[in-house]
Amino acid sequence: MDFFFQPHGIALIGATPNPLKGGNAILRNLLKGFKGAIYPVNPRYETIEGVRCWPSVTALPDPLDLAIVFVPAPHVPEVIRQCAARGIRGVMIESSGFAEAGPQGAARQAELAAIARETGIRLWGPNCMGLVDAHAGYVFSFVSPAIWDDGLIPGKVSLVVQSGLLSGGFLIDLATHGTAGVSKVCSVGNKVDVNECDLLAYLLADPATEAVGLYLEAIPEGRRFLELCRRSAKPIVVLKGGKSPGGAAAARSHTASMAGNGAVVSGALAQVGVVEATGFKQMMDFCRTLAEYPRLPATVRGRVAILTYSGGSGIVSADGLDALGVPLARLADDTLAAIKKVFPDWMPVSNPVDLWPAVEQNGAQKVFSAAARATLADPGVDALFIHAFAGGFALEVDLTEIAAEARRRGKPVICWLLGAREPSRRFQVATQALGIPVLREIPRAVECIKTIFTPRAESTPPPADSPPPASVAARLGSARGALDEHRSKTILAECGVPVVAECLVATPAAAAAAAEKWGYPVVLKGLLPGAVHKTEQGLVRLGIASAAALEAAFGDLEAAMEGKGEILLQRMVHGQPELIAGALRDPQFGPCVMCGLGGTLAEILGDAAFAVAPLSREDAVALVGRLKTRQLLDGFRGAPPVDRAALAEVLVRLGRLMAAFPAIREIDINPLICVDGRPLAVDASIILAD
Amino acid sequence: MDFFFQPHGIALIGATPNPLKGGNAILRNLLKGFKGAIYPVNPRYETIEGVRCWPSVTALPDPLDLAIVFVPAPHVPEVIRQCAARGIRGVMIESSGFAEAGPQGAARQAELAAIARETGIRLWGPNCMGLVDAHAGYVFSFVSPAIWDDGLIPGKVSLVVQSGLLSGGFLIDLATHGTAGVSKVCSVGNKVDVNECDLLAYLLADPATEAVGLYLEAIPEGRRFLELCRRSAKPIVVLKGGKSPGGAAAARSHTASMAGNGAVVSGALAQVGVVEATGFKQMMDFCRTLAEYPRLPATVRGRVAILTYSGGSGIVSADGLDALGVPLARLADDTLAAIKKVFPDWMPVSNPVDLWPAVEQNGAQKVFSAAARATLADPGVDALFIHAFAGGFALEVDLTEIAAEARRRGKPVICWLLGAREPSRRFQVATQALGIPVLREIPRAVECIKTIFTPRAESTPPPADSPPPASVAARLGSARGALDEHRSKTILAECGVPVVAECLVATPAAAAAAAEKWGYPVVLKGLLPGAVHKTEQGLVRLGIASAAALEAAFGDLEAAMEGKGEILLQRMVHGQPELIAGALRDPQFGPCVMCGLGGTLAEILGDAAFAVAPLSREDAVALVGRLKTRQLLDGFRGAPPVDRAALAEVLVRLGRLMAAFPAIREIDINPLICVDGRPLAVDASIILAD
Repeated sequence: MDFFFQPHGIALIGATPNPLKGGNAILRNLLKGFKGAIYPVNPRYETIEGVRCWPSVTALPDPLDLAIVFVPAPHVPEVIRQCAARGIRGVMIESSGFAEAGPQGAARQAELAAIARETGIRLWGPNCMGLVDAHAGYVFSFVSPAIWDDGLIPGKVSLVVQSGLLSGGFLIDLATHGTAGVSKVCSVGNKVDVNECDLLAYLLADPATEAVGLYLEAIPEGRRFLELCRRSAKPIVVLKGGKSPGGAAAARSHTASMAGNGAVVSGALAQVGVVEATGFKQMMDFCRTLAEYPRLPATVRGRVAILTYSGGSGIVSADGLDALGVPLARLADDTLAAIKKVFPDWMPVSNPVDLWPAVEQNGAQKVFSAAARATLADPGVDALFIHAFAGGFALEVDLTEIAAEARRRGKPVICWLLGAREPSRRFQVATQALGIPVLREIPRAVECIKTIFTPRAESTPPPADSPPPASVAARLGSARGALDEHRSKTILAECGVPVVAECLVATPAAAAAAAEKWGYPVVLKGLLPGAVHKTEQGLVRLGIASAAALEAAFGDLEAAMEGKGEILLQRMVHGQPELIAGALRDPQFGPCVMCGLGGTLAEILGDAAFAVAPLSREDAVALVGRLKTRQLLDGFRGAPPVDRAALAEVLVRLGRLMAAFPAIREIDINPLICVDGRPLAVDASIILAD
Repeated sequence: MDFFFQPHGIALIGATPNPLKGGNAILRNLLKGFKGAIYPVNPRYETIEGVRCWPSVTALPDPLDLAIVFVPAPHVPEVIRQCAARGIRGVMIESSGFAEAGPQGAARQAELAAIARETGIRLWGPNCMGLVDAHAGYVFSFVSPAIWDDGLIPGKVSLVVQSGLLSGGFLIDLATHGTAGVSKVCSVGNKVDVNECDLLAYLLADPATEAVGLYLEAIPEGRRFLELCRRSAKPIVVLKGGKSPGGAAAARSHTASMAGNGAVVSGALAQVGVVEATGFKQMMDFCRTLAEYPRLPATVRGRVAILTYSGGSGIVSADGLDALGVPLARLADDTLAAIKKVFPDWMPVSNPVDLWPAVEQNGAQKVFSAAARATLADPGVDALFIHAFAGGFALEVDLTEIAAEARRRGKPVICWLLGAREPSRRFQVATQALGIPVLREIPRAVECIKTIFTPRAESTPPPADSPPPASVAARLGSARGALDEHRSKTILAECGVPVVAECLVATPAAAAAAAEKWGYPVVLKGLLPGAVHKTEQGLVRLGIASAAALEAAFGDLEAAMEGKGEILLQRMVHGQPELIAGALRDPQFGPCVMCGLGGTLAEILGDAAFAVAPLSREDAVALVGRLKTRQLLDGFRGAPPVDRAALAEVLVRLGRLMAAFPAIREIDINPLICVDGRPLAVDASIILAD
């Protein structure tokens, strides 16, 4: 992919002298920064913008490895063929009028795909804004040349943005406001060939990229994407568009109904250590923070010291950290004594450290430096949250020395900035060049601090272990639709999932014999072909306490089923908590497993976590740890603690079953009751393709 | 208070020609905007900044009704006495060195309070930044005169900020970034006399104020503050600093332990229709949004049409609205047809409305206007969310006509803006002058839309109804500490709270007789003086199913209690859901009631809502409606729906009891079980002062 990022010569097909057209903007942007050969191509001109213009791509000399195409869509396929014939290795197609533009455009895009397959030429786009590289000064894009006015700010963050205009607009916003430096910004458009996986792979190997942010609407190569994330040492932040429910309405299982709202995507991303964002600027803020502080030792707890010039801002910051569970540092006596030296006599030192009275007495630079030195030296402080003001009150400070000291001690510094417009921009650009992220709102700064100290999953690939036993294949046979409870649980049991003791009973006497063996109370269920909601249909009798009651219940069920179906006898079990486990096949990520809280409240809370399968035991344990109500598993209020290894093993086995049999669409274990801390499948359903 | 906001003459005591001092900044700020008489006071100068300087306040001529004091703290009391003697009505004390500055400062502040009481002069501050009025052009503050450089932007929002520097810094930030116009910004400082209630009362009556935002750390006149909010027709937004837990650790009841994290403050504010914020800029964004759209008819649902130039931004906006439960509008056929006229043939119209292909064909102004006209005319659309870009791509649009049309139809328009720095500021200032709030991040814009369409409580004052019966006073007598379960429930029953059937039993025979009357199973509890945790101490026997078991349990309890205490027999009840109700006395707000979810999961979720008491039935119903898990009350999953009126009545009666007996510190009903939908107190504790 180097020919996209570091080409030696670029043909611009669709160059024009008309300054209102994108084909002119691209040329001007190339001329401002690109140092290699530039070949405008347009048969109607001799020169454009003072550069020799060429009649066609065929005639172009070396060096030439990249073409940027900005001609009307109907001409694009032919142009691409010419590029391939000329030996050009990659083309950025910035024209629109393809899959986003109705059936005719879709056909054109299919033609592009065919050309790429035939010729091996790599195609980026179409319907995209190309590439910006702030370090190299490359703008391979029709973005307005006004982007150069405030200067590109080189940084450590690379972005991949599916939406075209957004990438350009966002970049202009970031650069002109001084919010953030970037490394490479890739607008991928319709992804006819080059997609987010290709770009992510390149960026993860790129020495100028320390963190990657992606805005994605679809992740068609879902497994490849996750695998890249799993192996990445660099932080990755994803904003996934299109998470609102919709498809979930038609779900047949609990598992599938809990997959709405992007829970599967969130689970898959969390599994491989990706940080999720909910907005563009938040994504960028997380990226630039994590680019500076990519991975702290797991032992670091995140105890924060707040240095502020305003008591109110200190309090709001402490409230914000508390709400996110980030601890405030308890300052050591030495630290307090060191800060006390620059404080007025009457002023006690505590955290948040309110520096204002000291600043009035001793000046901002001296006081901020002394407080930062003392807190950075404190072994009970893991990070500094510095409040800065630019443009008044003699509060502006130079953080150069503080940044160096913090770097030496490996402690993150985050800065919240308020101030007048021009001084603020200057302060922000200068301070960020020191490696200190500057945020403009306290809640966002607090979120960024939280993100630094939230350990990202170290996902383990699943072991290549034995598939489910051959008997399972035989039982699945050529079945279609929902298997009944007993068949479902028999398969699960053969896969190693603990299930409740049960058996089909043909007569009251057979039922009584089995119940005698297990002891009362027992449960009797009527299995009718195709009936999924047994309870609602009156086919379940719980808590049968005696042989007489069992005989009566048997008779009732037989009558209710009118001679059809079978009767299932189960041991009655009690336990807490009541969970749900399941699996489904996601269109982007393939087989996934789920674990969630069961019972009535669960449905209101919607507390469920997903991961892609097959999965390792470690990943299954991590999945359980993502439940909001996971505290319930820890022996809460006298209940025995849940054996998380055993629970994880259920998920591992569900995942293995899904991976082995593509015919299985969904699996639902509901409830999965924890009896003396060990999970037991009490009801279950395996749903095959119809 | 008019002399603070519209004085005729101002004495500035502490004026100085030194441009580095606050006493000079105040003078320059006055000269730039204040049209009345200005009297610098300093015996060492003849003139300052070209204005005649006076040796003391005593000599000053009329008109003179306000003084601004910026002399060292030790001189302030004497200066205030002189002001009072001269007949000045109000003083803004902007000097620091008072209660915030150790015991000596606190003594000085106490002296100021005494002077105010003696003389009737009103004191604002000390340790504050005074007042800014952007409409009048008044800056009664030592804030840097640089604040004038970009011009004050007059707006509809007034602010009250407890923290001094914050108010100045925040204002400079807002004004220079063009983020928001303001009306009056009041920095209240140490509040020796004038406090947030005085200012709120003034601002609610101020014709130039359409919404009020307050940053407060303490609300000492809590009841007065709530009463002002309750009666306000103008939206009020509060950022409460200091909500982290701390004091909650020592709580003795469930009710008190759930009051951590500011739950009482949040409940009290929600009760009277106040919107809460978690950050300064969010507070301002809510204020300026609500200032434009203060109160929509309750029937308006908030169905939003999104007009965007970027598919990605549209999707992220739809996701954000969905996550907050704000519905996306379903556009009518007429609307679709009208928009289709400016769309390319191949492009279908849906919501979010992606205008880009149409903009390319027909230009931004025409397309945005057509789409806005059509969606505003659609009866299924309640609000527009317009995405704008300033400074490139020929996307900039003038929203003047759209604003007028929206105003005419009474439909809110919110704008999200991305763009280059200078054009963005221009667009933001111009568009906000049209009454359209412009936000810079999608999630924040979505929060603001949500806030417009979240009905604010219309709190009803409690009726002046009868106090609890006289028997309650007799029972409370001179008791101290925790009353036992039976005494607590007897009092509650006398107040009209439904309690479980129970009686003290002296012998097994008495117990059996009572159980016979109610029917088995029953519960037996040992009441030991001072014992609060009966279950943990083994003093509770549940589910006693027969006379024999009852006799045995009675013997067990007698033995366990070693002859002390009493034995309580109760009917055993079952029901769902299990709730908690309670009451406590908050230091700022006085008596408050609480209702929360009971059971194990409840503690993890911490789902409880508070309100101040006594309270009306309407307010009690609204309290219940603030529970996160309120869906459980609506007959979820086949359980009978809870009688919310009966539940509210329990809270009303708890509140009445708390209001009548100041000796009661806390009341805890746990559990309050819903039996056939009606709440029943099964265990309870009334805790009096020790």
